[in-house]
Parts: sequence; structure tokens; C-alpha cells
Amino acid sequence: MIYLDNAATTEYKPDVVLDAVTDCIKNYSVNANRGTSPKALYLQQKLLETRRKLSLLYHNGDENRVVFTAGCTAALNLAVMGNARRGHVIVSATEHNSVLRPVMQLQKKGFISLSVARPEEGKITAEQIDRLWKKDTWLVCLSHASNVTGTRQDVGEVGRLVRQRNALLLTDCAQSAGYFPLDMQRECVDMAAIGGHKGLHGIQGAGALIFNDRVTPRPVTFGGTGTESSLPYQPDTLPDGLEAGTLPMPAIMAMSAGIDWWLQNREKHAAVMTEMQTLLQQVKNIPHVKTYSSFNQSGITCFNVEGMDSAEVTEALQRQFSITVRGGLHCAPLMHRCLGTFDGGAVRASVSCVTTRAQCFDFLNAVEQIAKYPHSF
Amino acid sequence: MIYLDNAATTEYKPDVVLDAVTDCIKNYSVNANRGTSPKALYLQQKLLETRRKLSLLYHNGDENRVVFTAGCTAALNLAVMGNARRGHVIVSATEHNSVLRPVMQLQKKGFISLSVARPEEGKITAEQIDRLWKKDTWLVCLSHASNVTGTRQDVGEVGRLVRQRNALLLTDCAQSAGYFPLDMQRECVDMAAIGGHKGLHGIQGAGALIFNDRVTPRPVTFGGTGTESSLPYQPDTLPDGLEAGTLPMPAIMAMSAGIDWWLQNREKHAAVMTEMQTLLQQVKNIPHVKTYSSFNQSGITCFNVEGMDSAEVTEALQRQFSITVRGGLHCAPLMHRCLGTFDGGAVRASVSCVTTRAQCFDFLNAVEQIAKYPHSF
Repeated sequence: MIYLDNAATTEYKPDVVLDAVTDCIKNYSVNANRGTSPKALYLQQKLLETRRKLSLLYHNGDENRVVFTAGCTAALNLAVMGNARRGHVIVSATEHNSVLRPVMQLQKKGFISLSVARPEEGKITAEQIDRLWKKDTWLVCLSHASNVTGTRQDVGEVGRLVRQRNALLLTDCAQSAGYFPLDMQRECVDMAAIGGHKGLHGIQGAGALIFNDRVTPRPVTFGGTGTESSLPYQPDTLPDGLEAGTLPMPAIMAMSAGIDWWLQNREKHAAVMTEMQTLLQQVKNIPHVKTYSSFNQSGITCFNVEGMDSAEVTEALQRQFSITVRGGLHCAPLMHRCLGTFDGGAVRASVSCVTTRAQCFDFLNAVEQIAKYPHSF
Repeated sequence: MIYLDNAATTEYKPDVVLDAVTDCIKNYSVNANRGTSPKALYLQQKLLETRRKLSLLYHNGDENRVVFTAGCTAALNLAVMGNARRGHVIVSATEHNSVLRPVMQLQKKGFISLSVARPEEGKITAEQIDRLWKKDTWLVCLSHASNVTGTRQDVGEVGRLVRQRNALLLTDCAQSAGYFPLDMQRECVDMAAIGGHKGLHGIQGAGALIFNDRVTPRPVTFGGTGTESSLPYQPDTLPDGLEAGTLPMPAIMAMSAGIDWWLQNREKHAAVMTEMQTLLQQVKNIPHVKTYSSFNQSGITCFNVEGMDSAEVTEALQRQFSITVRGGLHCAPLMHRCLGTFDGGAVRASVSCVTTRAQCFDFLNAVEQIAKYPHSF
């Protein structure tokens, strides 16, 4: 089995991540932030360390403005729904449905008007955002990297414009966390959403919303916080007011271990990813193959085989060559409209730091076969 | 260390649960419901099995009406917020903040008027609900068992009234799942919320909302579902439309293993819990101790020591005797108002199926010491 769907979930989980999960389950299956037992206090300390780590990494200026969520989607929902107000919102066409759908929900309810910024050669520029600006624009959503093509955006360029206009910039870091950092201060990003199970090699079930002091989302989930329990209303303290319910400790500990592992192995892993990425992008040299991506740090190669639906190619790769990639629209319908691939989708192959050269060559050979004999598959 | 805070999170996790988590991380770290690789299909099958299991266990009549969430709080939020409409809501004073706070949020926004049913000797009767009924009552919230006293409610009695009046009954099963079942059909319950990390001995990070065909919650979280990706709007299909984002597979697999483990060991564990419960309830015979609970299947004993704040007793038990219990309000402020313990809270000691007699005796001795020499601690 050759796994090239790392942009969805990285299949490889390092021992430190598995150990963190096992340790948490075996030795610390208690509630953090509730009670004063040594184990609860230990978890509380670990949570604080993880908040601090993320705060320093993303430069949001305040560890209490790092809020743990069930994943990147939950973080993005908190960012959009928790700040919802009437006015105008600009989203990039590169966004995933985890951004589009909350925003479209606000539009559907008549709360906001919406403009979509279409990328020019993959990129969204400040100029484009400027052209779409209205006097009541309050939010701009621009992903750090596309989950379809891996294209990295210059969020700082857009961020400076948004800051100047006194609006908010939300950056979906689903495809950058664990691959390249974001300096929210320098890039003028107000909210960044991450998940633990992709580039950070943690497990599914935890993410975070990291925000600066220009914005304080209102809660979108209500419940016990272990604080101010006498209040039947949600407390407005941070971070607890935004973390209702028992936190998913094993997944948070996995994310925390994944962050350490990334930072320790950053250059080594980046070098592997670069090599594998470069190999995979060679798919463009195969006759009858059209690519939609160029080199990127998220490890994504996106292509189609002439005359074949992406689902057919994906199926052929899986069935005949045991290679797992992802076809279809990748939950990013507007991006596929921009690429002209809305109808048949595209094939996404995504590497990780454990992908090997042999696997890349096998992939290239398989695509070559399929492109050569499309009717045999 | 003696752990008697199992009502928050059961500390003991059986091997089958740990194995399920490890297997999921090591061998199936891919996305379920996305793609057609053998691993993705395997996970999809496991998800379906788990839905089926819960559907059969809770008798909701439709496995597609079992929706996985990040936990019980998220499930309760989906039940309340996802069905929100103008009108009148009745909540029991026994509810946890995970029910109270979503409901109070609707009240705060002016959408609903609210009545609170106060228990009589711990119980909520249909008669009480009837007295509070208004012609626009659309929702009644009644927990299966109190997280403060463990008192089990006769939800069927209330359920039949609610059904007759054509309203909805939401039952928080946080303290019953893994201890005793709920037959939604027989008890006329429309929505049941469960978490995996308490009586089911799974890990933190997964829960479920189980509902019948009288109700279809609207989504409260928006994002990728792996289905109908061409739609920038949330699809209204079940269960996927209500499961935006990557599912927390390790925690769901843990919950699934926990359900099997419970069903296999049900009688044996219930016998242990009964014995330990009975021992712990002896705390009532200690001079200067006042109890607020009687025998219950959720393993909860609730008490105070005369003249001492619950935090002092909790602290003394922890520091001097290494016994972990929980003081304060247990995120259930209205219940503590009913018990007359709103000011100093109460001490909750909760057993599990691995609690031993020796631990119970140690606990009773410790409380006796504290009650005898309150100023020494």
C-alpha cells in the first residue's frame, strides 16, 4: 500500500505521538481543569504548556487566546460564527468547505453579503481584496495553503490591507500546520485555525483557534467549563469560556507531541518533503497528464489524466496499483471551479516526511500506465 | 491514590479500549467517509457498526439518526441549538450546565421563555412538568441521572406526557451510558446524548446524539462532510450533514470498544458497582456528615461535613489521604440550589467497576477522621 493522501490525514504517526496518547489514557484519564488532584494539575500544566507553545509559534501575543477545539473545522466555525455580525465578508475561492459553509450559512440567513476572490495563477493579492472591499467588510478569509493545489498565499500582503481597514483576517492553517509557520503579528492575521492530524502528525479529534487581542469570539458551544459553575450562563473568561465540555485530552496531548516532533525535525522533514514533492510533480511530464499544482511545501500534487474522470484515475490507482490518492472536489468546490475541474474533479497525491523515492517512482509509473492505456482500467 | 471521581471521567480504561485506540492510530490513520481505499472503507464499516450498535441499544429506530460528536456537550448543543425555535422550554433543575447553558443562551437572546422543574425528593414527575406546561412548550430537558446525586429519573413518565403534547424530550445520558440503558421508544425520548469517557470507559473526545424520526436537528457546525462537496451549503443528508469535519476516529473506536466491553460485562460490573456504592453510602452513618444521595446505579455518593466547605473536605481528602473526589457545584448550579448546597457546594465520591472494598473503607475512615477533627485539616 502506498499512501499518498497525507493532505487528508497523515497516515504515519511517530512513536512520540502514540506514546503521548497511551500515556494520557493509561496514566492521566482524569479531567483537566476540574479538581485539584495531582493528575488533574499535571494535565492543566500540560494544557498550559501547549497553549504557550502555540502562542509562541504563531505569535498571537497571549496564551489565553489559544483555544482548543475538536479540530480545525470546529476552530473555523468558532472564528466565523463566534464573530458573526451584519456586513460584508470576502472569502478566497481557495477555501475549503470548512470555511465556505459557515460563511455561506451566514449569507443564507441574510446576515452578510459575500464576495469571492478568485486566485490569479493560484494567488490572492491585496489588490483583488481591495477591489472587492465594501465599507461594511468585517471579515476576510484566506487559507494559508490550498488543500487542492498546495499553493501558499502571501497572507501578509492581504493582512496589511485588512488591518489598515480595521477588519479581521481569518487564516485556515489546515494545510500549513506542521509544514511551515505563520507569524500572525508580522502577517497581520487575527485568527488562525489549525488541526492536529495532518502535518503535525497528531491524531484526529483536536485542533485550536489562535487569535490576537483585536478579536474575542463569542462562544458557539455552551456547557460546563469547570469555572464559574454557579453561572447558568456561559462565562466570558478566556480560554475556558470557549472550551465548554470535557477537553479531548488524548488528542490534545498528541497534537502537543506532534508540535515538538515537528520543531525538532523540521529541516530534515522539509528536505524529504521537498525531494518527494519534486518527484511527484514530474507527473506533469507524462503525456496526457495535466497538472494544476507547482512545487509547494504542503506536499500536494494535483492533476488529471486527459479524458478520464478523477474518480476513475483514483480507482485505477487504488485497485491496480494499491496507491491511495484522493479524487473529486476535496471539499473545495470554488477552487475546482477556478481550475476548470468542477465537473470531473482532480486527482490529489500528497506526500509526507515518510514517503519514499521508491513510492514516488511507483506512483509515476502507475500514472504513466493509466495515461497510456486509459481504457484498460 | 484512590480515585473516586469516576462521574467526571472513569480513570480505568480496559485493554480493549486502549487496543482499539492503538489499532486505529497505528493501522487506520486515514479519513473515514472520504475516498475508497481499503482502510477508509474499513473505518466506514466500523462507523456503521457503531451507529447500528447505538441505534439498537437506544431503540431510536434508525442508524442514520446516530450522529457522532466531539462529546456529550457537543451532542447536547446540537440537540438544543439545532432545534431552536421560539416558544417555551422546560428544564429540570437536575440538569448539568451542558444543558442549562445552551438553553439559557436561547433565553438570553429572547428566543424562548423558560421554566425550571424542581425535583421533589430528587425526582421530576409528569405532574410537575404538566403544571409548568404552556401552549408553546416545544422542548423538555430531563437528565437520565443526576451528576450530583446519581438519582435516576423516570423519563418514561415524563416522556409520555411530552409525546402526548407533541413536544420533544431531550435526555442527557452522560451519567447513565455504560451503567444502564435507555429504551427511547418505550420511554418516549426523542433525543439522547451520550459521551464515551464516563461509564463506557472510552477516551475523551467522542460522544453521540441519538434521535428518532420525530426530530431532525439543523447543523450547528458547518464544514466538509465528504459528501455533496460541490455544495458550498451544508448538505441536509443524515448522518453526514451533522458531522462536519474529520471525525475523531480513535475516540469513536474507543467508545465502540467500550460499548462492547460494557455489554459483555454488564452484570459483573453492576454487581461491583452495587457493592461499592452500598459501602460508600455508609458515609451517612458518620457523625456530622450529611448526605444528599441514596443508592443509585451511577455510582455517586454526595455529602458534606458539618461546618466545612466542600472544597475543604475535598482538599483534606486529597492532601492527607490521597483520595480524589470532587467538591464544588459539579457544573449543576440549580441542583445545588435545590439541595441547599449552593453556597459551599458538596462533596461527590463516585465509584467505578474497578473500585475495591479496601478503597471504600479507606474513604470512609478518612471522612470519619475529617468529620471528627475538622480543624486539623
